[in-house]
Amino acid sequence: MVDSSLNSPDSLRRIFESEDPSSRNADIDDFAVDGCFLDRALDLAWLGAGSTHPNPLVGAVVVKDGRVLGAGYHKRFGEAHAEVIALDHAGHGAEGSTLYVTLEPCSHHGSTPPCVEHIVKCGVKRVVIPILDPDERVNGSGVQYLRDNGIAVDVGVGQERALLLNMKYLKKKLNLGPSVTLKMAVTLDGRIASHPGARDDITGVEARRMVHRLRAVHDAVAIGVNTFDIDSPKLDCRLVDDVESPVPVVFDSRLSFPGGHPWLSGRAPVIVAGRDAPVEKEKELTASGGRVVRCSLDESGVDIAGAIASVFGLGLESVLVEGGAKVFASFVRAGLWDGLYMFVSPSLFGARGVAVSSEAFDKNHLNAELAGVADVSGDVVLSFINKNTRRSMLERLA
Amino acid sequence: MVDSSLNSPDSLRRIFESEDPSSRNADIDDFAVDGCFLDRALDLAWLGAGSTHPNPLVGAVVVKDGRVLGAGYHKRFGEAHAEVIALDHAGHGAEGSTLYVTLEPCSHHGSTPPCVEHIVKCGVKRVVIPILDPDERVNGSGVQYLRDNGIAVDVGVGQERALLLNMKYLKKKLNLGPSVTLKMAVTLDGRIASHPGARDDITGVEARRMVHRLRAVHDAVAIGVNTFDIDSPKLDCRLVDDVESPVPVVFDSRLSFPGGHPWLSGRAPVIVAGRDAPVEKEKELTASGGRVVRCSLDESGVDIAGAIASVFGLGLESVLVEGGAKVFASFVRAGLWDGLYMFVSPSLFGARGVAVSSEAFDKNHLNAELAGVADVSGDVVLSFINKNTRRSMLERLA
Repeated sequence: MVDSSLNSPDSLRRIFESEDPSSRNADIDDFAVDGCFLDRALDLAWLGAGSTHPNPLVGAVVVKDGRVLGAGYHKRFGEAHAEVIALDHAGHGAEGSTLYVTLEPCSHHGSTPPCVEHIVKCGVKRVVIPILDPDERVNGSGVQYLRDNGIAVDVGVGQERALLLNMKYLKKKLNLGPSVTLKMAVTLDGRIASHPGARDDITGVEARRMVHRLRAVHDAVAIGVNTFDIDSPKLDCRLVDDVESPVPVVFDSRLSFPGGHPWLSGRAPVIVAGRDAPVEKEKELTASGGRVVRCSLDESGVDIAGAIASVFGLGLESVLVEGGAKVFASFVRAGLWDGLYMFVSPSLFGARGVAVSSEAFDKNHLNAELAGVADVSGDVVLSFINKNTRRSMLERLA
Repeated sequence: MVDSSLNSPDSLRRIFESEDPSSRNADIDDFAVDGCFLDRALDLAWLGAGSTHPNPLVGAVVVKDGRVLGAGYHKRFGEAHAEVIALDHAGHGAEGSTLYVTLEPCSHHGSTPPCVEHIVKCGVKRVVIPILDPDERVNGSGVQYLRDNGIAVDVGVGQERALLLNMKYLKKKLNLGPSVTLKMAVTLDGRIASHPGARDDITGVEARRMVHRLRAVHDAVAIGVNTFDIDSPKLDCRLVDDVESPVPVVFDSRLSFPGGHPWLSGRAPVIVAGRDAPVEKEKELTASGGRVVRCSLDESGVDIAGAIASVFGLGLESVLVEGGAKVFASFVRAGLWDGLYMFVSPSLFGARGVAVSSEAFDKNHLNAELAGVADVSGDVVLSFINKNTRRSMLERLA
């Protein structure tokens, strides 16, 4: 966490206590400020959620003299890239500016001309990006072009958040297979419901909108059958305009999914059933539009690795897992996740509440690295990346 | 949360989607950037924890063209103020700069000359502060002096974090009585221990150092006797240099506190006992340096309001409550808290873990407003202010 650690009191002390003020490393302070601006570009990028596929989400801000003069994000596949929108937005202000963009700018003619040429033309002085774009037509050549044209380029600030932003796109380009993201909404005391069987809105609407953006960038969204029964969730993206909702996946070992459910006629839900679940029920669901995959059961429910492999076998390339506690624990125990979003509301449910995690864990089992912390209208969004995923991705991105 | 909400995707969308780019309100973007710089000043201020009393904690940064040119904090009572250190640090760079300072600059001769005169002399263009200083010698006159001298002053960014930073100082100046801060360290699933009776380090050392800074700004630090028995905590500030450790307070209804404990000879601990606890034990503890106060017991332990009133009656003006679950729940249930710090580690304890909260709560009972989110070397620090406290403070600060 390069950017955030530089905001810690200790690094400030380090800067501040250097004996000769003139020896102070101004780059360190710039770097912390870079984190602020890159965070804004990352926030912007999320506004394209669900509309940019097969392109990645990208956001950009143009900054000069500490002021944001232009901002943009890639809205829709085929339309202008974030960098171009932000630079045009800044107009003449782009000259001599720093451009913060959440992914390496493109250097090839796709559905739009190469962004790097536009960046050079606008007179940008410095470009800050978290990661390279592994697309074989870019993959370092964007940075090279900028540097060849006298533009300073810094790579690495906000890396973890940028990896999470385009997890599916990046894993695919890096041949790392499909992606799994876990999402839970909890109170400060780690409860997902006020009591067993209760259906509670944990967070406020802005945090829920962020959940809908998360759904919009996933092919599928998965829950356990208990959550399905209790919450009757829509699992759609209704708080975001004009995006397709993901395919629902229900872990339902006994195949109790109700025939006649509206999902069957529209969204071709995937029901993950145990091997012994009734064949008649499978036929009924399949006939009305559902897809049933069979999996082994282990002592705590479905064999999660086998189940998720079957889901991916249907051509779904990314899944957002939304609980409940048992499903969450299964994925964590198996280490089968890439990103984790914990939405925390400033409230407590206490002793009668349902805990987020229904199994016992060792403290180090989660293997999560903090990627970002954000205040979303009074709720907190914590994002984490699986350290194994991070390592694999960075090895191949280098 | 003025600063953070402006960082949300929706406010960015609002900025970005204004139809005519030239009509875009540049101040809105500046305001979000202000939040970043003020956060740095707040982080700096904490470095003075435990050394500035009776002065408040204050941090300052000097920014020009988006770069931090100077930084400072009030290190010790009688020594230079944060503003002056930061401005001197910036040297000639201070001219035309924006000064971010965590409290209204002073306008009176105390142990140092008035900061506002120095700010004017240095040619600062704009000053950003979260709150006024209620000290009767300042209380708006600092802002007035700056404005009278042609300096733009913005008040309000980072308000909640600034209120938390100097809770004891501010409540006292505002005649709002002593202050109570709650602090818990939890895993992502809201557990304070891996199993009953276990003693676990939840967070890493940098987060613990922040806990020690919190202790350093409180007169007393309180725990329940169960936590005392399990953790044998030192409750000191050993990770911070040269500060006095707070007085330990133990909620110990049966007066089982061990005679001969090292605290008795040094730190004059306060033992909160039930009315029926043995008088002989009280005599023994008192003779070796302890202080025993008696309180009524209610069904769930000591009457917390009465207990804390007795503690304050001893001249202790602020208390940091560090658990365990039962004590935490008592304070929350009574609404007897001003600030709450939740240290969250990226880990899970799961089903065998001890929950942070041992009573059942309604979702709205906590009445907490998110003040800040921070990444401290991979752990998360969430800070909250009691909405009632916030309202009372702002009413009197206006």
